[in-house]
Amino acid sequence: MKKKVFSLTTASFLVATSVFAEEPTVESIRSSLDMTWIMIAALLVFFMHAGFSMVESGFTRAKNALNILMKNFLTISIGSILYFLVGYALMFGESQYGLFGTKGFALIGEGDQVGFFVFQAVFAATCATIISGAVAERMKLSSYMLLTVVMTGFIYPIVGHWIWGGGWLSELGFIDFAGSTVVHLTGALGAFVAVLFLGARIGKYTNGKVNVIPGHNIPLGALGVFILWFGWFGFNGGSSLAADPELVPHVIATTLLAASSSIVITALYTHLRYKQIDASLTLNGALAGLVSITAGCANVSFIGSIVIGAVAGVILVESVQFIDRVAKLDDPVGAISVHGICGIWGTIAIGFFDVSNGLFYGGGASLLGIQSLGVLAVIAWTIVTSFIFLFLLTRFSSIRVDEEVEIQGLDFAEHGSSAYELRESYLSQNTEQSNNSFGAGLIERLNNLHASAKSNKYTVH
Amino acid sequence: MKKKVFSLTTASFLVATSVFAEEPTVESIRSSLDMTWIMIAALLVFFMHAGFSMVESGFTRAKNALNILMKNFLTISIGSILYFLVGYALMFGESQYGLFGTKGFALIGEGDQVGFFVFQAVFAATCATIISGAVAERMKLSSYMLLTVVMTGFIYPIVGHWIWGGGWLSELGFIDFAGSTVVHLTGALGAFVAVLFLGARIGKYTNGKVNVIPGHNIPLGALGVFILWFGWFGFNGGSSLAADPELVPHVIATTLLAASSSIVITALYTHLRYKQIDASLTLNGALAGLVSITAGCANVSFIGSIVIGAVAGVILVESVQFIDRVAKLDDPVGAISVHGICGIWGTIAIGFFDVSNGLFYGGGASLLGIQSLGVLAVIAWTIVTSFIFLFLLTRFSSIRVDEEVEIQGLDFAEHGSSAYELRESYLSQNTEQSNNSFGAGLIERLNNLHASAKSNKYTVH
Amino acid sequence: MKKKVFSLTTASFLVATSVFAEEPTVESIRSSLDMTWIMIAALLVFFMHAGFSMVESGFTRAKNALNILMKNFLTISIGSILYFLVGYALMFGESQYGLFGTKGFALIGEGDQVGFFVFQAVFAATCATIISGAVAERMKLSSYMLLTVVMTGFIYPIVGHWIWGGGWLSELGFIDFAGSTVVHLTGALGAFVAVLFLGARIGKYTNGKVNVIPGHNIPLGALGVFILWFGWFGFNGGSSLAADPELVPHVIATTLLAASSSIVITALYTHLRYKQIDASLTLNGALAGLVSITAGCANVSFIGSIVIGAVAGVILVESVQFIDRVAKLDDPVGAISVHGICGIWGTIAIGFFDVSNGLFYGGGASLLGIQSLGVLAVIAWTIVTSFIFLFLLTRFSSIRVDEEVEIQGLDFAEHGSSAYELRESYLSQNTEQSNNSFGAGLIERLNNLHASAKSNKYTVH
Repeated sequence: MKKKVFSLTTASFLVATSVFAEEPTVESIRSSLDMTWIMIAALLVFFMHAGFSMVESGFTRAKNALNILMKNFLTISIGSILYFLVGYALMFGESQYGLFGTKGFALIGEGDQVGFFVFQAVFAATCATIISGAVAERMKLSSYMLLTVVMTGFIYPIVGHWIWGGGWLSELGFIDFAGSTVVHLTGALGAFVAVLFLGARIGKYTNGKVNVIPGHNIPLGALGVFILWFGWFGFNGGSSLAADPELVPHVIATTLLAASSSIVITALYTHLRYKQIDASLTLNGALAGLVSITAGCANVSFIGSIVIGAVAGVILVESVQFIDRVAKLDDPVGAISVHGICGIWGTIAIGFFDVSNGLFYGGGASLLGIQSLGVLAVIAWTIVTSFIFLFLLTRFSSIRVDEEVEIQGLDFAEHGSSAYELRESYLSQNTEQSNNSFGAGLIERLNNLHASAKSNKYTVH
Repeated sequence: MKKKVFSLTTASFLVATSVFAEEPTVESIRSSLDMTWIMIAALLVFFMHAGFSMVESGFTRAKNALNILMKNFLTISIGSILYFLVGYALMFGESQYGLFGTKGFALIGEGDQVGFFVFQAVFAATCATIISGAVAERMKLSSYMLLTVVMTGFIYPIVGHWIWGGGWLSELGFIDFAGSTVVHLTGALGAFVAVLFLGARIGKYTNGKVNVIPGHNIPLGALGVFILWFGWFGFNGGSSLAADPELVPHVIATTLLAASSSIVITALYTHLRYKQIDASLTLNGALAGLVSITAGCANVSFIGSIVIGAVAGVILVESVQFIDRVAKLDDPVGAISVHGICGIWGTIAIGFFDVSNGLFYGGGASLLGIQSLGVLAVIAWTIVTSFIFLFLLTRFSSIRVDEEVEIQGLDFAEHGSSAYELRESYLSQNTEQSNNSFGAGLIERLNNLHASAKSNKYTVH
Repeated sequence: MKKKVFSLTTASFLVATSVFAEEPTVESIRSSLDMTWIMIAALLVFFMHAGFSMVESGFTRAKNALNILMKNFLTISIGSILYFLVGYALMFGESQYGLFGTKGFALIGEGDQVGFFVFQAVFAATCATIISGAVAERMKLSSYMLLTVVMTGFIYPIVGHWIWGGGWLSELGFIDFAGSTVVHLTGALGAFVAVLFLGARIGKYTNGKVNVIPGHNIPLGALGVFILWFGWFGFNGGSSLAADPELVPHVIATTLLAASSSIVITALYTHLRYKQIDASLTLNGALAGLVSITAGCANVSFIGSIVIGAVAGVILVESVQFIDRVAKLDDPVGAISVHGICGIWGTIAIGFFDVSNGLFYGGGASLLGIQSLGVLAVIAWTIVTSFIFLFLLTRFSSIRVDEEVEIQGLDFAEHGSSAYELRESYLSQNTEQSNNSFGAGLIERLNNLHASAKSNKYTVH
């Protein structure tokens, strides 16, 4: 009989070598506790992918929702596997000249680093998934998948090595506790370059006019923001890499306060600027605050975190405005502003607000210089590499869907289906009808793939 | 090279004074473990705000969804900052005559209480957000924000001080383990007074008839209920303030069983009463059970928790019925019944079911008396203070939106946008059209704020 | 004054006998840590019920969404209570001939097993809720509730006893770490038998043609898949029953990699087979990978987990195809393929991939034989018992709703309400109208239950 809780007798199938077969010691419990916290934090970061999915699908049009969901699911999947095979070794393997690592491919020889790998793998995928929002509604799924391979398998791990893997920037004293630069800026730069190659969505900029393309389901997007915020506590809190009873609460408190402050300021600032509290910007304001505090969450005071978040709220509004209307870069969910501009702000802000060496705390300008250098280096690396990759890729084929596909929506064209069947459900008294309607799925296609596509094409709801 | 997991060598930027720089001891690990549990519980409570957002937007009309989402995001934001600046000190600072605290404003001198502060801050915001559901679809966002300031910065912390901060009710032996009274009843009383000031929504009560105003997205609301239940395990389980291996499982089990029991009984009771299982009431039944077990989750037996939940299910149905049809108070999501009436029930129930001193366990009526006194005191305090505040506020301006705004929906009027664009997405073959449609967002407003509003006003989907 | 964090002085109401009143020791902390992890894992598994709810409602029609939500809420509720009263004792009580347990009804005498009970209770409900997806859109809620009682109170606990409770299969060395067979296959078999008794939905198979009945809200379903994946880390990771610093990360890594691999392969394979990446199948591919790795997550290598997930992705596509088109079993969400066929695959795969005794690792065929025997035994038991139960039940009344109800949708017929009011919200300028529309809820019914039903019947949106 094997029911005792918390006892290995229940688990007859356990790996025999588990440390748990031994007598507990202070050291073994300490390492178990740290591992438990890192694992929980990793799960929270994993859950952020649900948040990104909801934000990105909610803030774009219904006709492209399935496509965005697929991109998000494939990002975490491809990202996890690529990071396992290659990325982890490049990022945390033995350093070559401070530039990249070279040990631990497929985790070989890294058996004691599995928990750490999981935590880092979900970070890598986070970096890549930032791109999916910016390229939404027009990038081919296949091209996006290739970009994800390059981001999680190469571009991101190198940045990570420089800053977290013992590389040259970490040697200089560059501070990025949880990844304002490593994760968010890197992802946003990839997004920026991809948007340059893709161009704007049809109808976004017409005759010198900037048109609004509203999202189709803001409540779902708002839920996504809450999920991201929830997960971000693991993102920042887990970056302590230990269940430190002082550091973890500090990080969680600064993360809470910065996001709160950014939300309040974004709401007030949009009211000041547009006479109304803008819902989309305020939701993005939460993310702006979170990105901004990510680098310094362990290094700044509570008041510092509130100020950093507040500034982020203003930067966000102006940046979205500038990118959309002046630079005329079509970024459907504001990813470049949220993750890029606010990522830079959060990284630079440490130069001012670090309680040990920040300019405002009498630390002089040297930390500010190092932070700025790091930002510039990451900008240069990521723009150059993603530009080269996309330049080469576009020599072989277009990375953008056909105009007809874009107008019709990527869901039907790339997946032969639609995200919603709200109307049909109430109307059709029998399902025979539904076979002639937009949105018929898999099995219909099996019956008559091409005929079905043809007849459905101009049948809209 | 800095990749070792669970070692501070990775985290070169750590605060030097961390206890983790020292050798681990049994005491330091114990405090790390307790802290870890409290932090995880705090994150779960934080996530409840996502649940409230989904419940409140799902159970009301689509035309007010953005507005409710904004209220919820601003509640957790304002709440966190206010509680940091003022609330925490009033609640847990050195007690003055058992009435309020006076130390720890902006956490000054409370550096070792950061984790505790985070846990309490998300509780404070929970109390305030209860109101947003009851005042939905008609309260001005600005007025609501002011009420949130008063609730999280003043009314709630005082109640909290009395019961959890060493105040007079805790001295009397009043029991409220996780806040049936402190959090839920207080919030519901604020909601009650606000509803008195606001009045019913247009069309709710006409010619003596009680009209139904159905929610627009019950699946989203149901998800919200699940998120709330999930978070509630942290709400109740974290209130142990320690990773106690006997208390925490006990609390989680009573929380699971009470909610389960309440769901089953609500479903059966609505079937008995209305010949059908009512979906909205059954979903609220989950919350009724959760509110009811919150006070006594550590003090009652498993069977006790099942009975408390079952009674809550019946109380809920009758209370919603009474408030909606007899008292004619328009509470769109049933917040007064769920958090108020069931909060009272849960608090009083301890007088009967406490395994040490409850009436049913031979403890006499004294605990019952103390519990009742506490409930009455909180009712008096919260009603009087929120009445005074709202009375003063309404001297300066209306707290209710204009009739025209209410009919049109608060989303367009207060935010210039709409929550959904389901139809447009499929129909429009190019986005030019969308600029003439209801729901154009930020940038459209920039182009032509007033003209746009005018032309869109009567364009509906 | 009682504000000290992590100190019992705050919690004056604590159970006096708590181990925490004592001095901490290495052993007490170790047991606290293990308990904390199990509780967190249990909460994650609990949250999976939100995931199932969203998947099942999203992948079916809007007119049945409330009904499915009710089924899911009632499953976790009935399941928790039944498992408390009966199931736990049958599963983990003292073994009678290796067939069933007989001690611990209502947890009597099991005071030290409360945490373990909670973890197991949410598992039991998971097994039962698998059925709700397969029987969606046509099974009576009352019949479903009875089936849930039998599953969580009898059929599942017996299987659990055989494999996890010290019964005959565990004695033979059958391996099922987290329940590919115990939970998923058992649930899928119940679903299979229920579908046999129910038959297909109206309009599914007509004149020899297989019709598609598309889901109404795939983004909600996709969110459900993410929630399930998130919760699954607790499902598998918690099954270690201890915060083991080597085993838990290993399990979490194999769970991440198998699901990732299955997603990628499902996407590619559907593209190969249908020229398009099928969104619904790819989402189900995530679940297929998760079910498949559940049995062996602690026993296989990382590469093994990737292979197991990849094979699961192919099996899923072919199985859905076969069951839907050849076997003509109407399983709206693919539950039989995902939980049944992939559950079998995951269990059998251990025979090949177990790093100690698997065929591919030189362990011979004996483990493969034991795994196969276990699968066959569980198939026999579950099919026979659920067949007998459903056979008896159908002698007394139909378990299927009337044709008229099915066409109209179960939401209106069984709950007098509808899940969405998206159109009304924008259109109606006053709510008087809404009382004449489909979807009026509780209080309307109170006014005039039958008249209302009659007049609303043919009013559709």
